[in-house]
Amino acid sequence: MLANRPPNSYDVAQAAGVSQSAVSRAFSPGRSIAKATKEKVLKAAAELGYQPNAIARSMSSARTKAVQKSGLVGVVVTQLENQFFAKIVHTLSLSLQEQGWQILLFSVESEIDVDPALFELTQYQVDGVIVLSALMSQKVAQHCRNLSTPVVVFNRYIKDLDISAVRVDNYAGGRMAADVIVDAKHQYIAHIAGIQEEQTGVDRELGFCERLRERGATLYQREVGDYTFDSGYEATQRLLNMQPRPDAIFCASDLMALGAMHAARTLFGLSIPTDLTIIGFDDVPAAAWPGHQLTTISQPIEEMGQAAVKTLVSEMENPETPASQQVFAGKMVLRSSSLSDLYAQI
Amino acid sequence: MLANRPPNSYDVAQAAGVSQSAVSRAFSPGRSIAKATKEKVLKAAAELGYQPNAIARSMSSARTKAVQKSGLVGVVVTQLENQFFAKIVHTLSLSLQEQGWQILLFSVESEIDVDPALFELTQYQVDGVIVLSALMSQKVAQHCRNLSTPVVVFNRYIKDLDISAVRVDNYAGGRMAADVIVDAKHQYIAHIAGIQEEQTGVDRELGFCERLRERGATLYQREVGDYTFDSGYEATQRLLNMQPRPDAIFCASDLMALGAMHAARTLFGLSIPTDLTIIGFDDVPAAAWPGHQLTTISQPIEEMGQAAVKTLVSEMENPETPASQQVFAGKMVLRSSSLSDLYAQI
Repeated sequence: MLANRPPNSYDVAQAAGVSQSAVSRAFSPGRSIAKATKEKVLKAAAELGYQPNAIARSMSSARTKAVQKSGLVGVVVTQLENQFFAKIVHTLSLSLQEQGWQILLFSVESEIDVDPALFELTQYQVDGVIVLSALMSQKVAQHCRNLSTPVVVFNRYIKDLDISAVRVDNYAGGRMAADVIVDAKHQYIAHIAGIQEEQTGVDRELGFCERLRERGATLYQREVGDYTFDSGYEATQRLLNMQPRPDAIFCASDLMALGAMHAARTLFGLSIPTDLTIIGFDDVPAAAWPGHQLTTISQPIEEMGQAAVKTLVSEMENPETPASQQVFAGKMVLRSSSLSDLYAQI
Repeated sequence: MLANRPPNSYDVAQAAGVSQSAVSRAFSPGRSIAKATKEKVLKAAAELGYQPNAIARSMSSARTKAVQKSGLVGVVVTQLENQFFAKIVHTLSLSLQEQGWQILLFSVESEIDVDPALFELTQYQVDGVIVLSALMSQKVAQHCRNLSTPVVVFNRYIKDLDISAVRVDNYAGGRMAADVIVDAKHQYIAHIAGIQEEQTGVDRELGFCERLRERGATLYQREVGDYTFDSGYEATQRLLNMQPRPDAIFCASDLMALGAMHAARTLFGLSIPTDLTIIGFDDVPAAAWPGHQLTTISQPIEEMGQAAVKTLVSEMENPETPASQQVFAGKMVLRSSSLSDLYAQI
């Protein structure tokens, strides 16, 4: 039985059958500790009602150390309802928690809300920030730099901005889509591009169009969407009302491609891929649903998430770490929404 | 120009053209302030490099006030990749941020990870916790109560546990599904139930079966899934291999219902609803996609999210607030995946 005093780390160590150092490590962000040991410590701590007080700890260590650690990493996300981004947040969450960091989440409506969110985050003394699927301004980047808060941009990058970024090779992905379409000998090739203000969509379109040209094909028509299902659905109506009708559409996101597929089938009675090839980008879970079978470019989300966390952690631990650009290769996933070249030759 | 000292709240007030009290309110969780004023303050603060230091402020106010405010609300979620839960997190995030709270997110793999996540959250002195789509144990509930951390459970409730809950009327939703199916004169009625360890799925099934009985119909067969697309897809294969084949399936979630629809079409070549009526629950965005047109029970997520935040805030502000149970009515959304009774009579 404990005396009439709050339990301390020694009590927890005894109850858990571990060293006091293990207890300290269990409650320190970024310190290495075996998962099983940490669970033992957390369980004992909970049973005893031990409260290490993470925030007070971060304050006292701030007095003695140059680098202040709140144990918090801010994550700013737009479009959380897109399975692709939800999956990334989940991956980041697991990876950060494993290393003792907690996520302060800012789920914002639109790109224009990102700057205010970042200002608010820095009020909470986050140790670092990951910005997901969103744009940040030069001014906010500067603000973070002034506060020595490392930032990693995920799935985007900002030209002329000295900030770390982790992304897939969008340009190469666009080229892969062009190859599948040209191999299948399509004639009237359309593209539904993404948001024009950011580099992701621009690079996908650039790779697609350049590779079409290299292969002697031309782009018949282009539309612009905002990565959502509805925008793909609407753009496809405009495309399929053209004469002659496009026989292949490459969309800058899976959600737009699924919108294209539903429009082609329900509004125009088309068969996919006999009448129309559709290719997406991202490989969201719904792309693999048997009634969709969407050909798409998949992104190695888990590796990318781990790279983002690793980059952020090294910048948090050593503010002198230079910003890095990491580009991951996407993978073409052939499903039945695209004609194979074999099929086209029959 | 500022002298060679860090900017203070007076400097910010001057630059923003607001009172010092407005600056203070802008940086205090739960304090009332007009959105436009807050934005002015944040903008000026960012330009000056003003840093109110939220954590230090919470520490100093803790010394003088009985109730400590970190400004953080923990949100624990399983299944973030399900659009339904992602949408709730987004709704909660907007609603909490509007009132000056920040979200500490725990996205966990499965129900068994919820308890450890809650222990960790309490280390960060969150002012309150919202638990989403997950189970929490009696022990963890007790732990939160000992720390006087208010908890609101969303989309679930725990019997015999004195904790606030916000949820849809699952029992009534099950009854609505039964009525649509009986009205359309189906004979071989099947159900794909949700996770058996929690009340949500149990209530949906109970309402469905009781209403079938009241209307003189019987349940032909039942399967169990875990709310995911894959589990609905697999359960439907078992159902549709039966002789006679079911002509109506009520699924305890939209994702399972979409799995059922894709299985019925791609594996059995069935027409929906001519050969088979399918009804889901939740009204996720994909339910409305034109190629799906899934009949389902929609939940008033925004109102429910606001109610959860309101409940949590009043418990955070006044720990004496008794726990409350709030049940919202779901709404039957008729789409073309179910036969209407008119159609059935033709």
